[in-house]
Amino acid sequence: MGGRGRVRACSGAIISAMKVRDLGEFGLIDRLTARVAASASARQDRERLVLGIGDDAAAWRCDGGLELCTTDTMVEGVHFTLETASWADVGWKVLAVNLSDIAAMGGSPLYAVVTLGLPEDLEAAAVDALYDGMLDCAAEYGAAIVGGDVVRSPAAFVTVAMTGSTPGPLLTRAAAHPGDEVAVTGKLGGSGAWLAAARRGAPLAPEVAESLRVSHLRPRPRLAEGQALREAGVRCAIDVSDGLAADLAHVCEASGVGARLDAERIPVHPAVRRTLPSEALALALGGGEEYQLLFTATPDAMAEARGRLPGGFTVIGEVVQGPPARVSVMGPSGEILVDSAGWDHFRL
Amino acid sequence: MGGRGRVRACSGAIISAMKVRDLGEFGLIDRLTARVAASASARQDRERLVLGIGDDAAAWRCDGGLELCTTDTMVEGVHFTLETASWADVGWKVLAVNLSDIAAMGGSPLYAVVTLGLPEDLEAAAVDALYDGMLDCAAEYGAAIVGGDVVRSPAAFVTVAMTGSTPGPLLTRAAAHPGDEVAVTGKLGGSGAWLAAARRGAPLAPEVAESLRVSHLRPRPRLAEGQALREAGVRCAIDVSDGLAADLAHVCEASGVGARLDAERIPVHPAVRRTLPSEALALALGGGEEYQLLFTATPDAMAEARGRLPGGFTVIGEVVQGPPARVSVMGPSGEILVDSAGWDHFRL
Repeated sequence: MGGRGRVRACSGAIISAMKVRDLGEFGLIDRLTARVAASASARQDRERLVLGIGDDAAAWRCDGGLELCTTDTMVEGVHFTLETASWADVGWKVLAVNLSDIAAMGGSPLYAVVTLGLPEDLEAAAVDALYDGMLDCAAEYGAAIVGGDVVRSPAAFVTVAMTGSTPGPLLTRAAAHPGDEVAVTGKLGGSGAWLAAARRGAPLAPEVAESLRVSHLRPRPRLAEGQALREAGVRCAIDVSDGLAADLAHVCEASGVGARLDAERIPVHPAVRRTLPSEALALALGGGEEYQLLFTATPDAMAEARGRLPGGFTVIGEVVQGPPARVSVMGPSGEILVDSAGWDHFRL
Repeated sequence: MGGRGRVRACSGAIISAMKVRDLGEFGLIDRLTARVAASASARQDRERLVLGIGDDAAAWRCDGGLELCTTDTMVEGVHFTLETASWADVGWKVLAVNLSDIAAMGGSPLYAVVTLGLPEDLEAAAVDALYDGMLDCAAEYGAAIVGGDVVRSPAAFVTVAMTGSTPGPLLTRAAAHPGDEVAVTGKLGGSGAWLAAARRGAPLAPEVAESLRVSHLRPRPRLAEGQALREAGVRCAIDVSDGLAADLAHVCEASGVGARLDAERIPVHPAVRRTLPSEALALALGGGEEYQLLFTATPDAMAEARGRLPGGFTVIGEVVQGPPARVSVMGPSGEILVDSAGWDHFRL
């Protein structure tokens, strides 16, 4: 979050020549969110809209419950490379990351529209494989592709916009309270470890490689878990897409609270702990693209959730009073090992 | 449509090395539509879904009416260039073309999610202007931006997914019947004429240039018109995005009918007729990106619609029995001047 402070402190003259790179993803989103809020269009249809920009999905009233809508994109050379991912992997993942946003709201998926940006010389068989990956994921989680757009583009990209529904209440980022416990589903660090190994060209033992590859390229959206958390009375969640520390910072910023994590309780992927022990904690905190659910709740709601999530979850820390958005990771003697620093698509 | 026949007739060996370029936009969409229809995900939630892939928007039941969802994208260097469009123009247009899809279903807009793909060295002020263009258009037509995504991309692109609502019934592409009249709102050819002049670098007289520039870069989605057509009992419509002939061919293909247009009745933009007389008809038939509404209805429904559209419309031909998807343009002596040929993003 430090980068955002720097940007905001810039003088007017510097701001006028500011580049997207200088703002970073979160700085740019903040800037555009302010613009949308100031616009005349923001005053429209307030009655039906429940949640606009700033959470994992937007939400509005429909059929006595809530309808959800989110969008996520993968760009070749930025979010994937064909050196390490098949087109079917890309299709699965772009659907899964949208479904993960629906999961983080406690919802069920409905319909997706898909935009393909394709170079003209791409083989049609690649597009078939991309669609097969999306359709496999959609079928597994009960979503349906109902429309889309195909355009020519120098760089291949896939954008999915996904709708969902929930009877409510929503799981939001803004519902963390001091005294809440912080918990996460699954194991962390696998996705980041695979990406790091792939970038280095470092060979991994085959059984480890497959497990980490699946973590990175075939994430499993935690839809059942999100719904079970809602039913257990949990009201605050986010999916781990930017990295555990960064996503917890998003929650803390939206809720006006801080958080302390206990390093020893963070559930590091066993293959990562075994093969990359010196980097394991950093990968679990900062690796991103995990698509587990990170949530906070009172100890009572956590106990209720415990019985409803067959796959379980791990309590890793607590929500504390301010300073807002500050996430500290504590070592075994209560010392601060690291403060939060986010994953930023424009910086990495 | 001739290109699609050629592609379908290819041998298996040729198909295996087929490129996106060879299929073209419509061939690729047909191919992917078949894949979606064959998938297990297509069998989900049939009860609520009313209209899937193949029309201007998808539609499903919500709150006793129908909810709509569509998506459209603009890619730099493909759909716009900063030599002729400002970032605010791009923002306006990408919102407007999505709203035009909602208009073509007879609906009202609700919420949009926006994906920006941005090069890192783009100036932040450009993104501000892009958003201002979108927000101006959203405010004018009653839409609201409620979420989105920002990603790094070597080529700039903007994808909007837009939802809408309608009490129904829908205006669809599949509802044209032999004996229907064919009609279109507004004047045609302005958008294509501006694009052609911009590509040639041909100077236009300032008063003409401004009128044509607005046609191309600041299209006005025909939302009020679409709703009025629905209320008048019209049931078949499409927006003119690919070009009058190509879009009428889409209607005819979906409806299993043909159509005959009377060349002399086609409402050519007056500035185009005056300044480019030899190309005027071709531009009005094939120029594309007009975002007028093209619709068919019985003469009775046309008469009813006449009283409800203050801006009026022009009857330009009739729907006839097969061969399906054949659109013929007739000269003053009843001779066929031209048969339909579509605009294809991968070919042009």
